[in-house]
Amino acid sequence: MDLKSDRGILEKLKEYGKSDMYPFHMPGHKRERIDFPNPFQIDITEIEGFDNLHHPQGILKDAMEKASKIYGSDKSWFLVNGSTGGILSAVCGLTRRGGTIIMSRNCHKSAYHGIFLNELHAEYIYPQYIPKFGIQGGIFPEDVEKALKKQPDTQAVFIVSPTYEGIVSDIKRISQVVHRYGIPLIVDEAHGAHFPFACQGEFPESALNLGADVVIQSLHKTLPSFTQTGIMHWKRGYADEKRIERYLQIYQSSSPSYLFMGGIDWCIENMVRDKGKRLHLLAERLQNIRSRAEKFKNIRIPGKELSGKFGVYDVDLSKLVLSVKGTNIDGERLSELLRNRYHLEMEMSNTDYVLAMTSAFDREEGFERLFKALKEIDKEISPEKKAFLEMEKGFPWPEKAYMKIHQAWNNQTDKMPIEDAEGRISGEFVYIYPPGIPVIVPGERLDRKIIEFIQNYKAKNLPVQGLKDREAEYIETVIGE
Amino acid sequence: MDLKSDRGILEKLKEYGKSDMYPFHMPGHKRERIDFPNPFQIDITEIEGFDNLHHPQGILKDAMEKASKIYGSDKSWFLVNGSTGGILSAVCGLTRRGGTIIMSRNCHKSAYHGIFLNELHAEYIYPQYIPKFGIQGGIFPEDVEKALKKQPDTQAVFIVSPTYEGIVSDIKRISQVVHRYGIPLIVDEAHGAHFPFACQGEFPESALNLGADVVIQSLHKTLPSFTQTGIMHWKRGYADEKRIERYLQIYQSSSPSYLFMGGIDWCIENMVRDKGKRLHLLAERLQNIRSRAEKFKNIRIPGKELSGKFGVYDVDLSKLVLSVKGTNIDGERLSELLRNRYHLEMEMSNTDYVLAMTSAFDREEGFERLFKALKEIDKEISPEKKAFLEMEKGFPWPEKAYMKIHQAWNNQTDKMPIEDAEGRISGEFVYIYPPGIPVIVPGERLDRKIIEFIQNYKAKNLPVQGLKDREAEYIETVIGE
Repeated sequence: MDLKSDRGILEKLKEYGKSDMYPFHMPGHKRERIDFPNPFQIDITEIEGFDNLHHPQGILKDAMEKASKIYGSDKSWFLVNGSTGGILSAVCGLTRRGGTIIMSRNCHKSAYHGIFLNELHAEYIYPQYIPKFGIQGGIFPEDVEKALKKQPDTQAVFIVSPTYEGIVSDIKRISQVVHRYGIPLIVDEAHGAHFPFACQGEFPESALNLGADVVIQSLHKTLPSFTQTGIMHWKRGYADEKRIERYLQIYQSSSPSYLFMGGIDWCIENMVRDKGKRLHLLAERLQNIRSRAEKFKNIRIPGKELSGKFGVYDVDLSKLVLSVKGTNIDGERLSELLRNRYHLEMEMSNTDYVLAMTSAFDREEGFERLFKALKEIDKEISPEKKAFLEMEKGFPWPEKAYMKIHQAWNNQTDKMPIEDAEGRISGEFVYIYPPGIPVIVPGERLDRKIIEFIQNYKAKNLPVQGLKDREAEYIETVIGE
Repeated sequence: MDLKSDRGILEKLKEYGKSDMYPFHMPGHKRERIDFPNPFQIDITEIEGFDNLHHPQGILKDAMEKASKIYGSDKSWFLVNGSTGGILSAVCGLTRRGGTIIMSRNCHKSAYHGIFLNELHAEYIYPQYIPKFGIQGGIFPEDVEKALKKQPDTQAVFIVSPTYEGIVSDIKRISQVVHRYGIPLIVDEAHGAHFPFACQGEFPESALNLGADVVIQSLHKTLPSFTQTGIMHWKRGYADEKRIERYLQIYQSSSPSYLFMGGIDWCIENMVRDKGKRLHLLAERLQNIRSRAEKFKNIRIPGKELSGKFGVYDVDLSKLVLSVKGTNIDGERLSELLRNRYHLEMEMSNTDYVLAMTSAFDREEGFERLFKALKEIDKEISPEKKAFLEMEKGFPWPEKAYMKIHQAWNNQTDKMPIEDAEGRISGEFVYIYPPGIPVIVPGERLDRKIIEFIQNYKAKNLPVQGLKDREAEYIETVIGE
């Protein structure tokens, strides 16, 4: 066998790696040619001396204990099935089957999958909405308190912070509220894995230092770690670590990748040794591009000025929300221009904005190319008052669930054109990907606003997932509710 | 940041890679320095042109369709959370919560986790036992039929074939029995991923060609693919593919690794192009070492002669079971000798034997070193009739379950020394790892035989996992049964 890699996925990946496309998206290592061993040569199994992730007693135990010390947790676990594995384990481990969880409605689909698996009742808290930029704001501690008063039998609270767009909620006050009820606060900090390694004040503080009991971080999103790697931290007090571990053993492969585990250890080690220098440089570059962009006439990049409003406690400046709201182009068009004309690939685009994700591994060249591109495009476009679309108000969250997720998802369903489904209860998830937040979950009623929102998204060719038939817009609805 | 990898797990992996230790264990690529791109440079995310594993419409869809054609399935899915993700999805997707599954008792722990998650009643079928070598045999189709008659409401049948030691059951006849009841047969073929690429007759036939409805293969165990990668195949007829897919989306990371997916595609492509040549060479080498080993006085390597007895339909000769049963050393000692004196690392060892796992990527040198080592050791050891230990009869499977797994595992439990636990119902899994088959599962009663088996294993320092306290041998038992 000549072991060729001259076709298939690998060849496409190699070709793409050689192109001049600059990545303003995940993973955080930005495909830098990091000096790394041949992946096959370090890919081993649980042999003598190399420990076992699911029953660590040797080098993996040491590495996770070292990580725990670095992060200031009481225990940390390496995640090889992404943040997904950590989120499922935290939700299932900290609730009992059929119990109740309070969850911010803008969570990632994996949190909803946890609700499904444990047949939970979910009491939602809704994030604020920032109309000027069309992005979601933060979660008010008062809303958490209200939900807890309504559902005093709640077993855990689950919040996402920062959001995909970098909005950080007031975790300190939220955790104080949650702990008054004697239950744990789980924070999905998938997009904030760089926080713990930054110098004071340059990036927001990690939820782990602010009272959260379980914090899940995707290492690959903002740090030099392989896609599908993460870490979960635990603090003693309100969360049962043994039950979380049980589910980690269930939801993660019994043949975990040493390439991943070695890579996680390597990533943490190198971030520590760097003492925040690369993140400091990133902060300076962000400061620079953001202040130069203030002179733009049309494109705006929201930043720290959002703090204190819309439930926003802090903002992660590494997420560049390139807003074209109120101009004659939409986010999708901006993204196309950046890709086709400037060879800059963005993380996601939307009606109102484009998201550029930066990390400590971005290069000066990337920022310069981005600034130059935005400056040129800013001159070409102009303000425009457009017909107001329902989708521009943000996600039209349904007001209540009529059935639990597992009941509706497991129910008999009818497949019907979405325009005929008004008033029906959804039998499936429909979500926007990225980032994978459900617009509607099984058990929620499809009202006119939601249908219009989904149709508008699809009409604009934005990434809606979950509809049974992409072309004709069919949806599964519950029979005999 | 200078991005060093001069300490931690990665450094240990690199050092080990440089040592002269020869791997008679997983992964199947045997750490060969395969020409492969820098892993960071091809590690991307779901950007334009690179598709989405959970909603494939582009290159991933094409790659999985190509794989499906190659394997002759009606659909194939890449697995990035190991066979674990496939097994959980097949079990949960093909049963209803609270339903019944028939399962061979020698399944991997992930299958039991599926039972736990879906709160199933498990009706077990027991593999035969081959006393001469102390290994498990196959599953009789008649035993499957008996179980189906006893539990006609069964929703799926789950069998492991080949076993860790290479024993293949009669999947053709088993599938005929299962299909008469109108339900699907799931085969855990984790250890047989090489079967489909071999020339006729050189290795056993894949379950996929013999009537199985869902077949799960670990690509890393015997093929040149990264640890934690696998593939699952589906045939139309008895299994609901949509429900399996639902669970694949739940149990696998929403940020699947392109390194893994590219690697899987590459592995399949190269195995196809090789047209069985490397596996043919492996078959010749196995033939060679096995026939030369026939002259040994003490060490025996069972092979095809097992077929037709003990429920054995066929034998995968690539698994070298190096039996020292009836000699003055045990498997653990043989393994130590091979490691310390000959620098040959084995896959696992046991009281009765050592398992050497071979693949198409083994080198002539490895076989020569192994043969020379075995020849020398064979001369040094001698036959010996030892006191008969309970553990030498193989797993003393409990005769029945007193509670379902989820009931017992979620019950209140008492931690007690294992020697005091006779007659109590286990509140946890205790298993031998590798391969990860439970000796006892939650809900089964701890009788004298099982306790003695576990104690013997621990006394011999063999890898027992699950006991709460390794030193003092404590076990969780159910309170108030």
